[in-house]
Amino acid sequence: MKEIGIALLGLGNVGLGTYRILADHARDIERRLGAKVRVRHILVRDGGRSRPEDVPASLITRDIGTILNDPEVSIVVEVMGGLAPAKEYLERSIASGRNVVTANKALLNAHGEQLFSQALSRGVDLHFEGAVCGGIPIIRTLREALASDRVSSIHGIVNGTTNFILSAMADEGATYEDALAQAQKLGFAEADPTMDVGGMDAAQKLCLLASLAFAARVSPEQVHVEGITSLRPVDITLGREAGYVLKLLATARRLSEGLDVRVHPAFIPQASPLADVRGAFNAVLLQSAALGASLFSGLGAGSLPTGSAVVSDIIDICRNLLAGVSGRLPMLCSPYLQDVSLIPSTQRRGPYYLRFSVSDEPGVLGRIATVLGEKGVSLASVIQRPSRPEDPHATIVVFSHSAREQDVQSAVKWIDGLASTRSPTQVIRIEEGPGVLRS
Amino acid sequence: MKEIGIALLGLGNVGLGTYRILADHARDIERRLGAKVRVRHILVRDGGRSRPEDVPASLITRDIGTILNDPEVSIVVEVMGGLAPAKEYLERSIASGRNVVTANKALLNAHGEQLFSQALSRGVDLHFEGAVCGGIPIIRTLREALASDRVSSIHGIVNGTTNFILSAMADEGATYEDALAQAQKLGFAEADPTMDVGGMDAAQKLCLLASLAFAARVSPEQVHVEGITSLRPVDITLGREAGYVLKLLATARRLSEGLDVRVHPAFIPQASPLADVRGAFNAVLLQSAALGASLFSGLGAGSLPTGSAVVSDIIDICRNLLAGVSGRLPMLCSPYLQDVSLIPSTQRRGPYYLRFSVSDEPGVLGRIATVLGEKGVSLASVIQRPSRPEDPHATIVVFSHSAREQDVQSAVKWIDGLASTRSPTQVIRIEEGPGVLRS
Repeated sequence: MKEIGIALLGLGNVGLGTYRILADHARDIERRLGAKVRVRHILVRDGGRSRPEDVPASLITRDIGTILNDPEVSIVVEVMGGLAPAKEYLERSIASGRNVVTANKALLNAHGEQLFSQALSRGVDLHFEGAVCGGIPIIRTLREALASDRVSSIHGIVNGTTNFILSAMADEGATYEDALAQAQKLGFAEADPTMDVGGMDAAQKLCLLASLAFAARVSPEQVHVEGITSLRPVDITLGREAGYVLKLLATARRLSEGLDVRVHPAFIPQASPLADVRGAFNAVLLQSAALGASLFSGLGAGSLPTGSAVVSDIIDICRNLLAGVSGRLPMLCSPYLQDVSLIPSTQRRGPYYLRFSVSDEPGVLGRIATVLGEKGVSLASVIQRPSRPEDPHATIVVFSHSAREQDVQSAVKWIDGLASTRSPTQVIRIEEGPGVLRS
Repeated sequence: MKEIGIALLGLGNVGLGTYRILADHARDIERRLGAKVRVRHILVRDGGRSRPEDVPASLITRDIGTILNDPEVSIVVEVMGGLAPAKEYLERSIASGRNVVTANKALLNAHGEQLFSQALSRGVDLHFEGAVCGGIPIIRTLREALASDRVSSIHGIVNGTTNFILSAMADEGATYEDALAQAQKLGFAEADPTMDVGGMDAAQKLCLLASLAFAARVSPEQVHVEGITSLRPVDITLGREAGYVLKLLATARRLSEGLDVRVHPAFIPQASPLADVRGAFNAVLLQSAALGASLFSGLGAGSLPTGSAVVSDIIDICRNLLAGVSGRLPMLCSPYLQDVSLIPSTQRRGPYYLRFSVSDEPGVLGRIATVLGEKGVSLASVIQRPSRPEDPHATIVVFSHSAREQDVQSAVKWIDGLASTRSPTQVIRIEEGPGVLRS
């Protein structure tokens, strides 16, 4: 039986998952391919670290040269993460004519176009299903299944850590800090959770999805990114009473003026299929011209889920190698990718939830309502809660009608400067967009 | 720019959707392919029928020979439905070296293995995404994304007509007959709804999914298929009170003794992601070793949704043609497909909902409980409702603990023979399987 040699760069969480799936499902994969996939080398940075028992010592190397000099290696699989030396290793792999697989979204966001261009001109494949939403085949869906269609919007819950934290806050009334600590204890959040809770992880995934769906250059630096660290249980409770669920929502829409791409906490209707996405699950809701609404959901991270995506990429490239082709799919670079204008988030129009923390005295609501009115933000409903023993400030919550973000921001800036305002106003966007999957 | 010629066989609902997507998205498709897809012929059976304005008369033919004799036709797309002449036309297309696309699940169930074998030996591709669940890319997911994984179960709502009817019965308390009439009026059900409401349409889809997921020969004749025609609003109401939603569920599981493949109404937990699938939507919930639970949902039928799946197949084959390859994916025939044993549905173990319609007299519940006990069916809970003016019979509903289907059937047969039993007992399986998407 024919054999295809591969090398893994990295033996962390995803690397080990990839290795184990290739080992455990070897017979099924052979049967589907009519060929054997053989791991010939595994590059590790620290050769002295304890190695899982099921990985033979003979595969381990610390030298990328060993891999690049082995003519039997046809596919290099980068699962080490980080920008350096991952970028250099991928470049050298591509330059030497190897097909490559990566699960490194940070690298693709920072240097993707360069890597895809290099792969295109060298005539090799670069696959990256594992870089977005773990095992959910969303890259493949956009690259292949929806190649027939015109995507108009993407609404996603694409970060499991923040979704776990928000689910815990909603279900158990936990504070953000307690929910984060719980997520860290259970392994759903890292010791330094900044990338997740600050929204950057979600933004990197969203930008890859948007680039693919809209054939456009979109990078996290260009888009509005807001995390979940300022959210309070009271926001979740008040939103729920109004029929909403609070999620960290990644949104990309194609509008006539350009692309609207954002990551931020948002209230979505309880009836939205995204409202039911719990714990560490991810989901992506697409709207496209022919298919209409479609939903893709599953575990967005973890050793085996992400490993399964990496292995599906390896199998896809093996099928190309066995057929003697490459470059069947468009690469995320020129001429496929084009420049498009991005709509600034200040131009957003939609309803808002505004929670004001104010001194408990007469006339405050009147002043707030007046400022909002002057700025063109009209009120759909208002909730006023007096100060309580555990909270010396009064809470005023406003659900606005559709308003322009710029006007909301300017009103909030004014209100936050009032003597009666006790702490910065909480502003949460309400997105009615990701509606019910219903004909 | 290079041009790839295709021919459509059929210009019904799906054929017209396919034609329109190719026309409307021509520029996007050209950009993704670097080539033009040109419809050269459309075969219709009745050339005299009125033709949509946007389809040029010059494309229409009634003669398959015109298509097969045109050397510029590389892909033949069968969207005519039925077994004859679709089978013959596909065979002649394959024999002449054309790649083929079909959305014909009945044909694939009846003669698929033969067609796939022929395509395999002739070295052409046979794609069929449109045959199952319209635009949801579930065939592609099983053939490619999950090629890395080992699927253990498929739970699906794969028939939009019955899901629409059951949703209407649940939401509006409509009778089966009224809900069917409404579905027919809105175009969600055909004049002769037998294939849908009898479960055969779902069974044909499920068998294709199971064949692919388990690399096994499974045909609708071998599996238990039960439709929704005997369901009553009272069943939906009583199930809901116990925390369940009633769906026509298509299930395929890989067990150590063989495959368990069934289509029948089932109560599923309200918290199941399948419980939220409303109206004409379809959804497939997969369980696999590495990825865990994953859910795929969208419109499972209709001109444009199914057309989008057909066009994605056309694009995939175009990519192969441009790269000069074929046969990248395993074909649903030997050596990929193997014989496996199917577990008879009488061997099912699980809880049951039993609704008995009995005369309103003392001792009836005792007799029923005794018979169930003797057959080894133990009771989890019982609801007894006296006769009412509008219903002269009393209703007894039993929720059983897990029991063997054979024992349940034998108890029901006995009870249905009692003088006090007024009409055949309603038996509905309870499936806890398709659980919550939650880590």
